[in-house]
Amino acid sequence: MTVPVLLVLVHDASGVVSVERRDPRAPQVSILDLGVTRGDGIFESIGVVDGRPQALEPHLTRLARSAAMLDLPEPDRDVWRAAVLQSIDLAGDETAGRELLAKLVLTRGIEGGDAPTGWVYLYDAGAYDSEREGGIRVVTLDRGYRSDVAQTSPWLLAGAKTLSYAVNKAALREAARRGADDVVFVSTDGIVLEGPNSSVIALIDGVHVTTPPELGVLEGTTQHAFFADVEAHGGKTAYRPLTVDELRSADALWLASSGRQIAPVTSLDGVDVAQDARLTGPALASLLAR
Amino acid sequence: MTVPVLLVLVHDASGVVSVERRDPRAPQVSILDLGVTRGDGIFESIGVVDGRPQALEPHLTRLARSAAMLDLPEPDRDVWRAAVLQSIDLAGDETAGRELLAKLVLTRGIEGGDAPTGWVYLYDAGAYDSEREGGIRVVTLDRGYRSDVAQTSPWLLAGAKTLSYAVNKAALREAARRGADDVVFVSTDGIVLEGPNSSVIALIDGVHVTTPPELGVLEGTTQHAFFADVEAHGGKTAYRPLTVDELRSADALWLASSGRQIAPVTSLDGVDVAQDARLTGPALASLLAR
Repeated sequence: MTVPVLLVLVHDASGVVSVERRDPRAPQVSILDLGVTRGDGIFESIGVVDGRPQALEPHLTRLARSAAMLDLPEPDRDVWRAAVLQSIDLAGDETAGRELLAKLVLTRGIEGGDAPTGWVYLYDAGAYDSEREGGIRVVTLDRGYRSDVAQTSPWLLAGAKTLSYAVNKAALREAARRGADDVVFVSTDGIVLEGPNSSVIALIDGVHVTTPPELGVLEGTTQHAFFADVEAHGGKTAYRPLTVDELRSADALWLASSGRQIAPVTSLDGVDVAQDARLTGPALASLLAR
Repeated sequence: MTVPVLLVLVHDASGVVSVERRDPRAPQVSILDLGVTRGDGIFESIGVVDGRPQALEPHLTRLARSAAMLDLPEPDRDVWRAAVLQSIDLAGDETAGRELLAKLVLTRGIEGGDAPTGWVYLYDAGAYDSEREGGIRVVTLDRGYRSDVAQTSPWLLAGAKTLSYAVNKAALREAARRGADDVVFVSTDGIVLEGPNSSVIALIDGVHVTTPPELGVLEGTTQHAFFADVEAHGGKTAYRPLTVDELRSADALWLASSGRQIAPVTSLDGVDVAQDARLTGPALASLLAR
């Protein structure tokens, strides 16, 4: 078995000096690493379907954007791309017909040091069939922030994909307590934001709508691909602020993310929402065929 | 040299099964640990002055409270206490006349596993003389949250000491950009909260005042000890909401934390604030003598 594959990007102050394959079952991170002591780092999760990395360039762009927001050294795009491709190459035949995830992590490194820590981890994230086909129950939860914090208070890091995801995990546990599978965060001024690990897409009056990144949400790489597919088939898309009421009355609702691709939402805060299986199936097939 | 000392608390699903001394310079954490991939864990930093751990029981109480807020297994108080004392014991003579810090970390462990990860790390955190004597320049920064989120939205984990501190670190970088040393976070409804790693204490009309924990701030163990010392000398203390205007016009202002103990604030948002050296010196001496 060659999957999982771990490639450590060994850094010094000037950048990556080597890429080394390591044993992911052995400890590889220092207890002094700010990634673990402060959640001070960033990540990306890239779907790898049948050996093809999905939206690799948008993910690398987003990694660079997160790095800039955290004042981390700019990741060398060519080096990270090569590491992702190398991990897939090392997995060889084991990628065939499978869905894997490549997780990219970049931390600020050892406290007091001058070099970040980085790795690419290629692994089998498990099956998504039940969520894709059966759909997911979602609850809305307060994110605590106004929708303009990305503009007013950039140190809150809204829109950066950081390793400080304890709130995202706590929100998912709260969803489970409420009998749900996932979460849609809402701003204090009533704007729909995103899931803890996904973009929200609503079909309203024939238009696929999602929240604009200016409102402090991540640019969804899967949401982008979904929109591109919709547009390629003559459909309409829009980026605009959405309210929870609009989600409730939408003609269909999905959460989009790199592993699960898209999952239809079946209920919102315990109330059934409309679905459109004629859209979900072909869109999912198209996303997986990327 | 025996300091630093690292003791790993090896867990299985039932709790700590052994306490093992490990090399802190060698990697000890898995890249699959939710502590590093999601900042999904908690910590405490305990001052160890001349071999005496300070406020050990309050720190263990706060560790348990953070664990409860994150739905982590309850840390075995006796085991953690013993590990802290053992780390000091192992440091032996090297603790004499020195200020060290014991950092306690508990993470959710390997993703998909059933056991948390834990360690105690005893180390020399460096000198605080210049901040204690010369004081610190502080800026106020929006924390993005209302002061009631601990009540309305517990999944935001306000008041838990988590490993997801990327925002705290970003706020400190913003302070540095503004020519300051530290930060006081302010809620969106204008209440003074806390520093990224400290409690705020203002002397107003002869009363030492700090923010109540109900407003989503950590219970400060050093602030508690400071208040106890004030009261022992016949002074008055109070927990009540503070505004930034009150900080500006206070008769003295301090940030309190386990390593630095207390540091007098010399300026707030670039404007000088009053100081009271007659209070700071004796209070600091008393805190260090605990």
